Amino acid sequence: MVVWLNGALVDEARIDPADRGFTLGDGVFETIRVAGGRPRYLAHHFARLHEGVGVVGFALPHDDASLAHAIDGLLAACGLMEASLRLTVTRGPAPRGVLPPLSPSPTLLMTAAPAGAPPGAARIAVATVTCRNEHSPLSRIKSLNYLDNILARREAADRGADDAVLLNTQGRVAETTIANLFAVIDGLVVTPPVAEGALPGIARHLVLEAQEVFERPLLVQELYRAEEIVLTNSLGVRPVVAVDGLALGGRDGLLRSLARILDS
Amino acid sequence: MVVWLNGALVDEARIDPADRGFTLGDGVFETIRVAGGRPRYLAHHFARLHEGVGVVGFALPHDDASLAHAIDGLLAACGLMEASLRLTVTRGPAPRGVLPPLSPSPTLLMTAAPAGAPPGAARIAVATVTCRNEHSPLSRIKSLNYLDNILARREAADRGADDAVLLNTQGRVAETTIANLFAVIDGLVVTPPVAEGALPGIARHLVLEAQEVFERPLLVQELYRAEEIVLTNSLGVRPVVAVDGLALGGRDGLLRSLARILDS
Repeated sequence: MVVWLNGALVDEARIDPADRGFTLGDGVFETIRVAGGRPRYLAHHFARLHEGVGVVGFALPHDDASLAHAIDGLLAACGLMEASLRLTVTRGPAPRGVLPPLSPSPTLLMTAAPAGAPPGAARIAVATVTCRNEHSPLSRIKSLNYLDNILARREAADRGADDAVLLNTQGRVAETTIANLFAVIDGLVVTPPVAEGALPGIARHLVLEAQEVFERPLLVQELYRAEEIVLTNSLGVRPVVAVDGLALGGRDGLLRSLARILDS
Repeated sequence: MVVWLNGALVDEARIDPADRGFTLGDGVFETIRVAGGRPRYLAHHFARLHEGVGVVGFALPHDDASLAHAIDGLLAACGLMEASLRLTVTRGPAPRGVLPPLSPSPTLLMTAAPAGAPPGAARIAVATVTCRNEHSPLSRIKSLNYLDNILARREAADRGADDAVLLNTQGRVAETTIANLFAVIDGLVVTPPVAEGALPGIARHLVLEAQEVFERPLLVQELYRAEEIVLTNSLGVRPVVAVDGLALGGRDGLLRSLARILDS
């Protein structure tokens, strides 16, 4: 598979076993939707990437224009018009130890995969095996530390669900393992604030700019009685049909509104 | 550098860019002290490795006897008698997505580095930038998700300290970014329980077996008035001389006791 690694398109990319992305999860990533051959909301993704490496504490080794050019080259090399693109940035190879080197040589990897079929309606399960730490700055960036999400996603699969809702340490709703969550409660559209452990998703941001949404803490029991629930991430919108096996009402007003805003 | 990767000694090891250890931090590791050419407490480390991959949800691709044999081969190839050895196990390469493949092909990497000089006395700082999520099962295994520890360690360095104390979400002491913490308070030896977010360290386990220690929640303010604080991990014991710039009393009874137990 052709990938773009540190400035070049390569067929057989090799990650150094000493890369801190591999040894310590020391990095961040972005997942970008490509539609009609064009990456969507690229400026937003670059801004969040800069924000992420800033929190982690190093700088991107390439400027935005070079990265945009590299994306075009990768998509052309892969022959993909509809794709999901992933940018992974790590602090790069280093000797052992938790303290990062003062002058890191970051690793930047871009991979493209053909766009999957739209995921369709989701049955979601509230994770019990782990929770989101809303007190950590990592809850506000897309870091490589995805094991809590993986554990929750496995639990959901074991329970016959398609995705898991992560609660925060207070037991309130944060988001799902791969998406932000919007719910209609008593006729109002509600989503958990970033301070509750919700990732500041780009689709979430676009929705908040385009329509009235109440950002407020969301209780688990509110999910069970929601009139509608919709999940959003950079790859699209997804209606929820059941929470912990309890069917929702079947309304689709919010879904249609969010799909229109996100053009997906 | 010679490393052992998936069953063979190799000079130029290559990690697949699709390895879930690299893309999602989906794996665990062990750091093992090698003294006089022999890995120490190997059975304990193997037991914890099995425990770790069990929590994450896959099985080790090699049995303990093969791994022990591989360690001997790696140490011989590297010509190391005093070393720190690292075993990293990931769920291996997989297509994109948080849900793991049903039949993973785990990656197992072993690297050896010459033992560093004993680290000496530590000035520690209480991390403010992030905290340990004691509600996550990840707090009880050595997973690859080390970014919270990295952020705390960087903060400590910025404040002139050698390591950071991680508090849990309740604001009580968990451990440091690389070691368990023992404190003498009113003449009693105290250490935070695993339920408070302390990693069940192997050195910690050996200490608890060998001498009277009170496992109980530990408050930050108790650190400031402790008669003595000692840090332990698999590489050794380390006395603490100051907490957030406040000097400790200079006693060394606990240090000598723990060094005797751990023979380091």
